[in-house]
Amino acid sequence: MKPMNVGLLGVGTVGGGTHEVLRRNREEIARRAGREIVVRMAAARDLEKARKVLGGSIELSDDAFSVATHPDIDIVAELIGGTDVARDLVLAAISSGKHVVTANKALLAEHGNEIFAAAQEQGVSVAFEAAVAGGIPIIKALREGLTANQIEWVAGIINGTTNFILSEMRDTGASFDSVLAEAQRLGYAEADPTFDIGGVDAAHKLTIMAALAFGIPIQLDRVYTEGIAGLASEDIRYAEEFGYRIKLLGITKKVQEGIELRVHPTLIPHRRLIANVEGAMNAVLVKGDAVGPTLYYGAGAGAEATASAVIADLVDVTRMHTADPEHHVPHFAFRSDRLSDTPVLPMGEVRSCYYLRLQVVDRPGVLADITRILGDLSISIEAMLQRNPVQGEPYVNIIIITHLTREKDVDAAIDSIEALPVTSGSVTRIRIESLDGK
Amino acid sequence: MKPMNVGLLGVGTVGGGTHEVLRRNREEIARRAGREIVVRMAAARDLEKARKVLGGSIELSDDAFSVATHPDIDIVAELIGGTDVARDLVLAAISSGKHVVTANKALLAEHGNEIFAAAQEQGVSVAFEAAVAGGIPIIKALREGLTANQIEWVAGIINGTTNFILSEMRDTGASFDSVLAEAQRLGYAEADPTFDIGGVDAAHKLTIMAALAFGIPIQLDRVYTEGIAGLASEDIRYAEEFGYRIKLLGITKKVQEGIELRVHPTLIPHRRLIANVEGAMNAVLVKGDAVGPTLYYGAGAGAEATASAVIADLVDVTRMHTADPEHHVPHFAFRSDRLSDTPVLPMGEVRSCYYLRLQVVDRPGVLADITRILGDLSISIEAMLQRNPVQGEPYVNIIIITHLTREKDVDAAIDSIEALPVTSGSVTRIRIESLDGK
Repeated sequence: MKPMNVGLLGVGTVGGGTHEVLRRNREEIARRAGREIVVRMAAARDLEKARKVLGGSIELSDDAFSVATHPDIDIVAELIGGTDVARDLVLAAISSGKHVVTANKALLAEHGNEIFAAAQEQGVSVAFEAAVAGGIPIIKALREGLTANQIEWVAGIINGTTNFILSEMRDTGASFDSVLAEAQRLGYAEADPTFDIGGVDAAHKLTIMAALAFGIPIQLDRVYTEGIAGLASEDIRYAEEFGYRIKLLGITKKVQEGIELRVHPTLIPHRRLIANVEGAMNAVLVKGDAVGPTLYYGAGAGAEATASAVIADLVDVTRMHTADPEHHVPHFAFRSDRLSDTPVLPMGEVRSCYYLRLQVVDRPGVLADITRILGDLSISIEAMLQRNPVQGEPYVNIIIITHLTREKDVDAAIDSIEALPVTSGSVTRIRIESLDGK
Repeated sequence: MKPMNVGLLGVGTVGGGTHEVLRRNREEIARRAGREIVVRMAAARDLEKARKVLGGSIELSDDAFSVATHPDIDIVAELIGGTDVARDLVLAAISSGKHVVTANKALLAEHGNEIFAAAQEQGVSVAFEAAVAGGIPIIKALREGLTANQIEWVAGIINGTTNFILSEMRDTGASFDSVLAEAQRLGYAEADPTFDIGGVDAAHKLTIMAALAFGIPIQLDRVYTEGIAGLASEDIRYAEEFGYRIKLLGITKKVQEGIELRVHPTLIPHRRLIANVEGAMNAVLVKGDAVGPTLYYGAGAGAEATASAVIADLVDVTRMHTADPEHHVPHFAFRSDRLSDTPVLPMGEVRSCYYLRLQVVDRPGVLADITRILGDLSISIEAMLQRNPVQGEPYVNIIIITHLTREKDVDAAIDSIEALPVTSGSVTRIRIESLDGK
């Protein structure tokens, strides 16, 4: 059978890795796919550099559109990143009847609904395993592995940079700023790290997973996003005292009133498997009503780990290439004519447990004031701890763990506590998830 | 579109769970599959009991063959267990052009090669996600999620009963016998537990995973199988002192000389995620050359967890029902005309690190005798520990951790050590795997 011809758009880290793995495991992959999968052409800005990566036999062009629409190409692998040119390229490839494989989460989070509608109309596949959690086959698990279930929630460590920083802060006790500097030195964080640190990258991946889990459209603008830059190392230490680890989680949950979509630092009981995912690794915990909790763990980034997901998609598309589009697995797990319009819940309506840290003057009656504020808002306290601050400061730290509470009630309590004359500065508020399969 | 009609063979735990989840999540599943999937008929020995489980609307028969071959049935779900009648039923269904979904690992481990050849010839699918690790979509991960990779090894906790017993032994310090009795009381272990305890159930699942990972035939008779009945609680304690947990692992690994297939208790560094999989849960760690290590975790048994996998297969088969067989994903990941005849390595040729515990008379020169025996066989020692036995015994325990060694050299060393006049009883030997992604 004639080989499947791939047009590679972008010969950077992931493009180079995809070429290398396709070359090295050529025979193994052909044994699985039923035919060879070869990079036939590639587009790159720096042709000389691309030539060094790809070797001599692959046709090169600096015109990505000519590759994306070339008659000899069966599948376009979009690995250039960004959202503007990438969108035009993917839509052009689809219009030319090409299947598309992409690793581009930003593109899908921003233009996914448009892209999948175009693919649906043309009867081609757009596959995107590499867009979430790198080499972990989490898209396949959500889309095909758990089809029996009503998914109840998904919670994932889906950004390696922030997990590396949080792991280091915990291991060394160092501050966020110094660990970030180290991560940048080691290449785990970009020179401009705001995209990772601020939770935007995780939000991209989360809205994609939510679409697969619940059959809803991609809604990036509805994701509540809070990064890790505000985390103090003392909060990591206090969390440990209560038996928790702090992780940046992307969480989507279906509750009575709607769907929660949120990215924020989260306290997790240290005995949960996901609390022990260290360094730059990723893990996604999925709770289905039939299967219970399942976890998927692996490398969330890196040339070959991402290439592993890109190529798995190439093989899937190859296996289905000439099949009737009716037999394609739906892009978003649910058939496009059967999506749901369940609303995304405003963050104020979300219910969670909370870790609060306040700095107050250490004198009689202060605790009574605080517990009265919480009691008036029906916020019940699971644990409270008082810790002396560093020598010479006139304040003590009070740490409070609450039972399940509505976010807007906690916000109101925080406003009242901060308005007390005995309170210094702002209250630290970190959400807690038990992730216990319930 | 007309519904897919399922014929259920067996209305026990898994059959009942499959019916219940298909009923409860009917709409969610139809949104994913593109058409309804309904249990049209069921076969059971006890029709009255089956009627209670299934309700009034499903046609019941005590003749499983009539259901397996009935013209109204599109997919046969074989959930009766056992290997003789189940084999005949599955082959009859295949001959009648039905797709088959099965949760029966024993059937596949013993008759899989024959069954898949028959399915191939008829152009039907035999799907078996539920046969390994219950609800965890590990078959799909190996067959479709990791197709880019040369799989280097797979190591799994794939028997919940033994993992429950080992977790309890560690937590409580109790003996194997007393924990087994408790597990039987709680329903985690069968009245006759030999199948689980002896590692046979894990061996069934391992040979299936090895076929998927390496594109080799199923070879149950080549699996080295060692259970947990011989494990002393003191070995669990000593392993902890060295920083290890003991788990019953199914391991398959591709090395230069062939493929390892082995089930045995294994020391794992306690910081590995898989070392922290507790109770009756399952987890499978897969190392691919591109993706690195990935882990899949969830419930390995139970009515609805297993039903989750059965139904995922029903949806897959439904999506592909009318497609050309050329487009089916190969049953064993690799196309059946591209299987490999890589030999399975005899256990003596396997290389591993070892935990050895010996009881010897505590007197000068004994350690020299032992280290000389090891040295003569080129077995190098990573750590050694001497522990006094319980009061009143004339022997001390010596625990030795070796570097990487060939199994037959360790066996020879053990023979020599046991022959020493100072040695009491037999030497305890447990293999160690670092599972560090290398």
